[in-house]
Amino acid sequence: MNGAEALLRTLTASGVDVCFSNPGTSEMQSVAALDRVPELRGILCLFEGVATGAADGFARVAGRPAATLLHLGPGLGNGIANLHNARRAQSPVVNVVGDHATYHKRYDAPLESDVAGLARSVSRWFRTSARADDVGPDAADAIRAAYGPPAGVATLVLPADLSWTESSRGPGPAVRKPPLPRVAAEQVEDAAKALRSGEPAALLLGGAALRPDGLGAAERVGRTTGAKLVAETFPTNMARGGGLPPVERLAYLGEMALAQLDGVRHLVLAGARAPVSFFAYPGLPSDLVPEGCTVHVLATTAEDVAGALDDLAEAVGARGGNAPVDAGTVPDRPTGALTPETFAAAVGHLLPEGAVVVDETVTSGVFLPEATAAAPRHDWLTLTGGAIGDGLPLATGAAVGAPDRRVLCLQADGSAMYTIQSLWTQAREGLDVTTVLLANHSYAILEFELARVGAGAGGDRARALLDLSRPDLDFVAIARGMGVPASTARDAGELADELEGALATPGPSLIEAVLPGR
Amino acid sequence: MNGAEALLRTLTASGVDVCFSNPGTSEMQSVAALDRVPELRGILCLFEGVATGAADGFARVAGRPAATLLHLGPGLGNGIANLHNARRAQSPVVNVVGDHATYHKRYDAPLESDVAGLARSVSRWFRTSARADDVGPDAADAIRAAYGPPAGVATLVLPADLSWTESSRGPGPAVRKPPLPRVAAEQVEDAAKALRSGEPAALLLGGAALRPDGLGAAERVGRTTGAKLVAETFPTNMARGGGLPPVERLAYLGEMALAQLDGVRHLVLAGARAPVSFFAYPGLPSDLVPEGCTVHVLATTAEDVAGALDDLAEAVGARGGNAPVDAGTVPDRPTGALTPETFAAAVGHLLPEGAVVVDETVTSGVFLPEATAAAPRHDWLTLTGGAIGDGLPLATGAAVGAPDRRVLCLQADGSAMYTIQSLWTQAREGLDVTTVLLANHSYAILEFELARVGAGAGGDRARALLDLSRPDLDFVAIARGMGVPASTARDAGELADELEGALATPGPSLIEAVLPGR
Repeated sequence: MNGAEALLRTLTASGVDVCFSNPGTSEMQSVAALDRVPELRGILCLFEGVATGAADGFARVAGRPAATLLHLGPGLGNGIANLHNARRAQSPVVNVVGDHATYHKRYDAPLESDVAGLARSVSRWFRTSARADDVGPDAADAIRAAYGPPAGVATLVLPADLSWTESSRGPGPAVRKPPLPRVAAEQVEDAAKALRSGEPAALLLGGAALRPDGLGAAERVGRTTGAKLVAETFPTNMARGGGLPPVERLAYLGEMALAQLDGVRHLVLAGARAPVSFFAYPGLPSDLVPEGCTVHVLATTAEDVAGALDDLAEAVGARGGNAPVDAGTVPDRPTGALTPETFAAAVGHLLPEGAVVVDETVTSGVFLPEATAAAPRHDWLTLTGGAIGDGLPLATGAAVGAPDRRVLCLQADGSAMYTIQSLWTQAREGLDVTTVLLANHSYAILEFELARVGAGAGGDRARALLDLSRPDLDFVAIARGMGVPASTARDAGELADELEGALATPGPSLIEAVLPGR
Repeated sequence: MNGAEALLRTLTASGVDVCFSNPGTSEMQSVAALDRVPELRGILCLFEGVATGAADGFARVAGRPAATLLHLGPGLGNGIANLHNARRAQSPVVNVVGDHATYHKRYDAPLESDVAGLARSVSRWFRTSARADDVGPDAADAIRAAYGPPAGVATLVLPADLSWTESSRGPGPAVRKPPLPRVAAEQVEDAAKALRSGEPAALLLGGAALRPDGLGAAERVGRTTGAKLVAETFPTNMARGGGLPPVERLAYLGEMALAQLDGVRHLVLAGARAPVSFFAYPGLPSDLVPEGCTVHVLATTAEDVAGALDDLAEAVGARGGNAPVDAGTVPDRPTGALTPETFAAAVGHLLPEGAVVVDETVTSGVFLPEATAAAPRHDWLTLTGGAIGDGLPLATGAAVGAPDRRVLCLQADGSAMYTIQSLWTQAREGLDVTTVLLANHSYAILEFELARVGAGAGGDRARALLDLSRPDLDFVAIARGMGVPASTARDAGELADELEGALATPGPSLIEAVLPGR
């Protein structure tokens, strides 16, 4: 077999059986090998940021990596923003980038560029295969590196000639997901001591601490010790509903986050990092740990966070199993004007059991956490790295990774336009993704940020750069142009009706929810 | 004034008066400063690849740089592919990237990334401003670096706090486009000697050699010495029509390029690089200089290429001025089936005086050069770096840079989808861009490349990754969804009618030309 086939067989031997692809000439051998390795599902994306974001979404729900197939430096460049989000999500991704033939690189052909320089910024592991015989073992190393812990993006560069050259070694060894190391007893004891001190304490939960086991153990710790539970601002995949404790997320705005943590003397980190402001603002702090508060690291994402929370529960005397929590009531079916409140109520009212919610609502989603807390069990995926344009790709990949579940993508209009090509892949693959496209016709968050950086309200020329009208984007037309059925909801009742219908219909659809915004 | 205003005033003092923007929080001060510096036109793009490609297109027709305004590493990442094309075009671009506040970077906030690593791969100059006082002088250095020679991408990173801090020095000095150095007499004499040797010779023309003065001088040299004239494969901006010599471009396919240069013993480079194969293929050479052929460098793009060609004409005794050349006849208005031939005839029949043609036709444009050779004077912009998705952005920027000319964008469907968001900016700015969208519903070039890399014709699973149907993209719906009037042409007569109407109508429009392709 040639190097390309060795690559594909290494992937499938390790359970990496999906490849989100936007190939070019230098990747044609890998494309051709798909016919010889039918275990690998090649999924065409019309833009590389769709492929990388989909790989992230896949990993977040499937718990194992997908591969990508990108075309040289510029293709990798197009995938960088969502690889950045995947890096922040600590999602395992096997990022395969084709390159010119080894002997061709010195000619500086038009597509030649510094692939390594681009890849290193987002990759926890990077390698360029040197010989066809190495491709299989290198691919196995890439999978191993993607798993970590901590998990992340592993970029393997495959020069074109290695893919068409015979590989005498064939595939590399199968790689399995490694177990996470347990934390040292001292870490648990240090956290337990802090929580037993009688001083105000909080647990900041992230990563696996936001999965059901972690949440349950954390809830017991909080109930027993009085410690406050707070989730990181942008979780990779937070389990919610169905009796899970509805943990409040740390606010995006530093001032609000500081208010949430006000008076806390011990901050115990479980799979989360010490909180910092998303951006800097004149006169506001970057570090959001309250003054006089001691930070305790119970577990990092490279450790068994859920196990550490169990150990902590034991140490503070919070024995027994995890019990369902009363998280209030499901909202009534909304009527009247379409507002952030009624939008959230429609989602909370209709959210089906097992849904995967992808949340790139930006400013319009403020009422969602409360409105969905009492919904059936679901998962919540957020914009971990702040690089907007992740929602539609995440939803695409999540639907591939969880084919028996409904994906609900809650998507702001400005952010949608970075990776709108995702809709076509949803149509081609017949993915069960329902997108609610929140159209406020502005980069509303930036209108807000303009004032926060001390630039005032902005004049006409500044505001024109934050305004998505003139002309209005017609997302119904755009979605239909990519083969996705679409409709418009102009009030809350219409949204509930459209959403109910869409959730019950196989395949993708998009509902443009017209919000007041100007 | 603050650092942001110092930046903007430095740009406008040097004639950089357009900024293609996709800003975020860290760039809000620069956005706000637009109201205080009305000489700078801020143009909103909904994706960064549109902004960077538009800056490239602007520079190619205006001969001076535009600025960009991008948001941190991920925003720069989205702009990389078209910065790569701009780098290959040697277009001057002042690429401004906002970053976190200097004191905020160490907190590794979610959007923190290696901006320098990303920028260096595409930039001939890179700097991060260190103090507000430096912003003006740094911006002047960036403009100077963008001009070169050789011209290129200069990336200036502006940390957010410098933009809101008072700058005591204010704007930097005004920068003017530098003159190009004349080539040494020895270079001219070496080339002249080769051309007078009596052995078969060719002039390979690129950069400014493809502008009217360079073409005229090259034509005289060719006519006098018998040297063949060949243009580089992917010119930045080639002047054509209106009596200019119709110089054949070197073929994309190495075998065809070798045939064009077959027997040539002296290859004289005038603003072009020695020819290399675009990709490597098993058993085919990367170096396209024929065996036994000597390469002579008359002038690089960092030198006065047109002046060197004039000197060469003088040296070989080709005196007198440039004269119009008979380049055949304008094709008749086509009828019948829509094919690459009739498409080209429609363009050749209707191309208006002074048009700027942006050509990202990929496989469908093979008949265009001949069909347009006798058209009125026009410019031809191509995909210099091979990173597809450049056509719509180039057309957008070219229309801003040449507001009194009609831009005709000839765009393949697969490539269009990378930067389809360009259409919205064309609508907002009311740009005179007519797009002919060539819909063959496949990555046709890859079907071809699949065989060329030795992978055969591909099975069903391979071919699915090269096929843009299931579902078909409806570019009329997509364009209308972004506010651009659109229509469909299903035969050559319809295309001619639609094209004629569109070219006579102010503002943007799109014609989906349905080609046989499956």
